[in-house]
Amino acid sequence: MPDVSPRVLKGFRDSLPEIQLPKERMLRRIESIFESFGFAPIQTPALEYSEILLGKCGDEGDKLLYRFEDNGGRDVALRYDLTVPFARVMGQHRDLDLPFRRYQIAPVWRAEKPARGRFREFTQCDVDIAGSASLLADVEILQVGCAVLSGLGIDGFRVRLSNRKLLAGLLARVERTEDATGRAIIRIIDKLDKLDESKIRSELEGVGLPTEGVDRIFEFFQRGKSGAPGEILERAEQFFAGIDRGLEGVEELREVVGCLESAGIQDRVCLDLSLARGMDYYTGTIAEGVLTDLPGFGSVLGGGRYDDLVGSFRGQPVPAVGISVGIDRLLAGLQELELVPRASTPTQILVAQFDAELRSHAIELAARLRTEGRSVELSHEAGKLGKQFKAAHRRGIPVVVLAGPDEVRDGTVTLKVLETGSQETVSASDLPARLTEILGD
Amino acid sequence: MPDVSPRVLKGFRDSLPEIQLPKERMLRRIESIFESFGFAPIQTPALEYSEILLGKCGDEGDKLLYRFEDNGGRDVALRYDLTVPFARVMGQHRDLDLPFRRYQIAPVWRAEKPARGRFREFTQCDVDIAGSASLLADVEILQVGCAVLSGLGIDGFRVRLSNRKLLAGLLARVERTEDATGRAIIRIIDKLDKLDESKIRSELEGVGLPTEGVDRIFEFFQRGKSGAPGEILERAEQFFAGIDRGLEGVEELREVVGCLESAGIQDRVCLDLSLARGMDYYTGTIAEGVLTDLPGFGSVLGGGRYDDLVGSFRGQPVPAVGISVGIDRLLAGLQELELVPRASTPTQILVAQFDAELRSHAIELAARLRTEGRSVELSHEAGKLGKQFKAAHRRGIPVVVLAGPDEVRDGTVTLKVLETGSQETVSASDLPARLTEILGD
Repeated sequence: MPDVSPRVLKGFRDSLPEIQLPKERMLRRIESIFESFGFAPIQTPALEYSEILLGKCGDEGDKLLYRFEDNGGRDVALRYDLTVPFARVMGQHRDLDLPFRRYQIAPVWRAEKPARGRFREFTQCDVDIAGSASLLADVEILQVGCAVLSGLGIDGFRVRLSNRKLLAGLLARVERTEDATGRAIIRIIDKLDKLDESKIRSELEGVGLPTEGVDRIFEFFQRGKSGAPGEILERAEQFFAGIDRGLEGVEELREVVGCLESAGIQDRVCLDLSLARGMDYYTGTIAEGVLTDLPGFGSVLGGGRYDDLVGSFRGQPVPAVGISVGIDRLLAGLQELELVPRASTPTQILVAQFDAELRSHAIELAARLRTEGRSVELSHEAGKLGKQFKAAHRRGIPVVVLAGPDEVRDGTVTLKVLETGSQETVSASDLPARLTEILGD
Repeated sequence: MPDVSPRVLKGFRDSLPEIQLPKERMLRRIESIFESFGFAPIQTPALEYSEILLGKCGDEGDKLLYRFEDNGGRDVALRYDLTVPFARVMGQHRDLDLPFRRYQIAPVWRAEKPARGRFREFTQCDVDIAGSASLLADVEILQVGCAVLSGLGIDGFRVRLSNRKLLAGLLARVERTEDATGRAIIRIIDKLDKLDESKIRSELEGVGLPTEGVDRIFEFFQRGKSGAPGEILERAEQFFAGIDRGLEGVEELREVVGCLESAGIQDRVCLDLSLARGMDYYTGTIAEGVLTDLPGFGSVLGGGRYDDLVGSFRGQPVPAVGISVGIDRLLAGLQELELVPRASTPTQILVAQFDAELRSHAIELAARLRTEGRSVELSHEAGKLGKQFKAAHRRGIPVVVLAGPDEVRDGTVTLKVLETGSQETVSASDLPARLTEILGD
């Protein structure tokens, strides 16, 4: 084989154990939370016909597709998100019981300009409910989002809540519709928490909105920023006098807000009418989760209702609502907050090898400890015990167990706790209990 | 959005809950077994520079790559397996402590002709140890393979064991080397359990091997088929008289076999010197796991030692050995053996809605049951209780809990077990214990 210089593509990365081990643990926790709400896992192909994915995430989205011709001459692309493939599934598998609650945890690919914390391949964790028009589904999605963040041990978080119908109403108020220009306006509004007001103003004017309209938009956001939910919604109602879409959005928000207390998330979810969400397909509730201890860090979860997307694959409308957890960003945030224990190995115990003579004994000892539920590595090299201890300590393994000729004769093992350096001799029968004392269960 | 007909690419498929739910449970079990041996998780990009992947899996492998030019004009391809990217990782991240034990569970892509049970996208679960030349690493990999199959509740399985050096010796015996023709011979031998002898014979003659050589090969396999491990190895030793590579392979096998009893897998691992394994990169131990209750089903795990592959990315040799679990094939096998419980939802309890008035109460009840560790769905539609019960039963949800006005007044709930149809009224405080009786823990 010819020598090849090892490298990864720009915007891609290897996730080594110190990242992947905590990430897997977070994913297991997230899965169990998703399942506690009755969501069932699915997987869809990484590759789809391009026509399935095109035109769903705006022109910008289309440009970011990894699209190519496969060996059979088909026009294919790597999925851009998990929502569009889910809508395709709902269109294709019509015998699924509705409402259908599914989760999917999988990588997606976007040929974006790489930047700090932005990669071309990243993992999404999506939960969606298809086939329920009830606002209880919207509430449930908010509950799942809060349960995930709480379940990961995060205390400082907030879920910003709004409704796309308000933006439709807002467009009507500034005499625009949800056409290409209208969608461009929404995408500009989506940048509100990233850019300052003057930049947003000039972008809005850049798509042809007169200063008066721009003022109107900022007036609306001012109304929706602060106060009790009831007050905010009342001010919005006044603003939308005579505009049905806007009033409908206010009414939906009122119903969702009315359920938050029973759902136990009234302190977590707060109205923020300046919320937009970039995707074109949202039609109702929209939400976004942020870590309050990391201002400016950006959202760690986001989602909303998209009642039209499934219909484009099914011929008839199927209402749907969902939320996506940005696990990579969330992990980065938790690491910044030092909420992730450092670990690069799952190993709890290294079984050291005294010498080659006692190899079989060491293999047996390691196998026995594994049947007791421990994560155990067997050292492959005999002798040089100091070196074996040092390597184990450097790698964060807490305990070394060793049996030399004396221990084998006496039916004992020597146990060394690497953090303290303390060493003791334990009878083989007492070993499991002693390990539980040291390592916990 | 324009209407698009929903479909997946040929050779790809959606994995809906009735497949994905048991698959995820198997994967969680496999991960915990991998971790019990001290393997740590990593992930690598789905896309690699094509030059990383090319030439590692033979010409046939190269043709099966999903290879294309990305938006930046780079020659890229979707990974074909997890072993080559792992070798690339070992070449690139030189500060990793050796031996490095990693696992990776991820999809791979091969543009193969689709057939029953053969897909263009499938999941691999790989464990590998890099940086240990010790045959204890080979034994450990065999232990992991056996632990996975046992851990999934499979009683009837066997791991076939051999060593690539025997095949090198065999090529020498028939006056061939490990060049292109030699590799072709190995790939033909790899089909031994799929094709009958006459077909293999004519293929071997097709690549220029005289009848005498073909006879020699079949003689060797005859010697390696049956008997105690000691006898098989002795016959092989005689066969290889004067051929160093072959004798070296026999010696390695003898050492590995000598450790099987301490490792507790002597009844699971059996020598089969006709084993070849398709990949070009193997250099020593090779192994393959089969389900003995499904003869002819093919292998469900496979792997071996590949001491040269990492070196092609690192400039210096790094010995490595690993095994890969074919989870999709394994799941199909377990389903054929009816070892997989049928389920299409993780939900244990449906909280039905009596009427819209009591909505808040139902939301609270569902939230409370979730905090008690249950998987709970809330019905979004009020009323039509018979319909709610029927839908729950059809979907395999075992229990429905309901609170109407009487129950709310009395601080009770009505609990219905759908399998039996039995119904009872339970006080809210007794509910958790009663659910544990019905559902287990």
